[in-house]
Amino acid sequence: MSTSTMKIYQAVGSPNSRRVRIFIAEKGIDIPTTNLDLSTKEQFSDTYSAINSRNVVPTLVLEDGTSIGEVPAICRYLEEMYPDPVLLGSNSRDKVLIGMWDRRMEQEGFAAVMDAVRNSLAGMKGRALTGPHFYDQIPAMVDRSKLRVTNFYSDLDKRLSESPFVAGAGFSIADITTMCTLDFAQRALQMPFAQTHGAIKAWYDIVSARPSSSL
Amino acid sequence: MSTSTMKIYQAVGSPNSRRVRIFIAEKGIDIPTTNLDLSTKEQFSDTYSAINSRNVVPTLVLEDGTSIGEVPAICRYLEEMYPDPVLLGSNSRDKVLIGMWDRRMEQEGFAAVMDAVRNSLAGMKGRALTGPHFYDQIPAMVDRSKLRVTNFYSDLDKRLSESPFVAGAGFSIADITTMCTLDFAQRALQMPFAQTHGAIKAWYDIVSARPSSSL
Repeated sequence: MSTSTMKIYQAVGSPNSRRVRIFIAEKGIDIPTTNLDLSTKEQFSDTYSAINSRNVVPTLVLEDGTSIGEVPAICRYLEEMYPDPVLLGSNSRDKVLIGMWDRRMEQEGFAAVMDAVRNSLAGMKGRALTGPHFYDQIPAMVDRSKLRVTNFYSDLDKRLSESPFVAGAGFSIADITTMCTLDFAQRALQMPFAQTHGAIKAWYDIVSARPSSSL
Repeated sequence: MSTSTMKIYQAVGSPNSRRVRIFIAEKGIDIPTTNLDLSTKEQFSDTYSAINSRNVVPTLVLEDGTSIGEVPAICRYLEEMYPDPVLLGSNSRDKVLIGMWDRRMEQEGFAAVMDAVRNSLAGMKGRALTGPHFYDQIPAMVDRSKLRVTNFYSDLDKRLSESPFVAGAGFSIADITTMCTLDFAQRALQMPFAQTHGAIKAWYDIVSARPSSSL
């Protein structure tokens, strides 16, 4: 299904962009995409600053020119426009439980990996936080963030030993966020989950076998 | 309007609890409330751990016993049950714009204040992050977080010079989050917004005059 009236701005290596790429693929829709080159700081160009004042990717630009930033907001809009298949819940209870779990995975997993990466990589000097402002790295945050990732894995293994998917019985946006977090931790921090986390492994084998995961 | 089948667990001094208290007051509903004493670490009791595995407040417990944590998820459920007055947007575009702005205020404002507080206060030693795990304070985060708060005020003043409310033409959850952030910064960090931020001041005078703000 083509949605030629919307447009996505994103970056190939950005894990937040990947969350949206996978969400779009799961919806079976096709949105015209502009790739930004973060290595040349294209997100700070005047053109993109006018599209996203936080200078972050991804952004969804609607047919009327409205810019939507922030992954959960972008996915919410796409869910409202293209409800099938359901990825954000089909009733009030499921919607808020999926929202809650997606946010927990972001705060306890994704954000911890991001903090470790941004406060350690040489290429992130002066860019320790996303957004329009420039902040110095804090080396002490690296070890603390890695400890958070380790704790996140333990908590996730416990959760997935009680629930087939992160937010309950079915695949949802919370699984996309979590899979992107795990792959990001492995790629950027060389911190894969331990093979002893059997519940994570069983879940990961299932979600990473979906065609969308290759994006 | 009484909603005697739901229940809220919260703490008086918790700024995240305050966001939900104000949201509930704006809805004109009444939800039976249990106050936790964070000074005695009641959030880590076995009873509360079973209600909220992250050991954070607030939690909304539904009529069927389901626990909903995370402020945006709690408010989303209340909005679905009690749609009037609308605080999360009345059409798809407004819903995602309000969600986007609420999240930006959280990430760039609320989280920055929280980081400065948790990494500096003597009473927060070993509790530098919310959640079930214990992390040491990182003193270097205090100055960086305060710089983030200063930048947040500048960005907010610009936004409010272009828009009457944080997320657009009407009062929304994003205004509640932002007001709670400003009051929290003043109370816990002695960092009020500068009186030169005229747009913040004009907006703050309006939102803080609402009866709900006294909560």
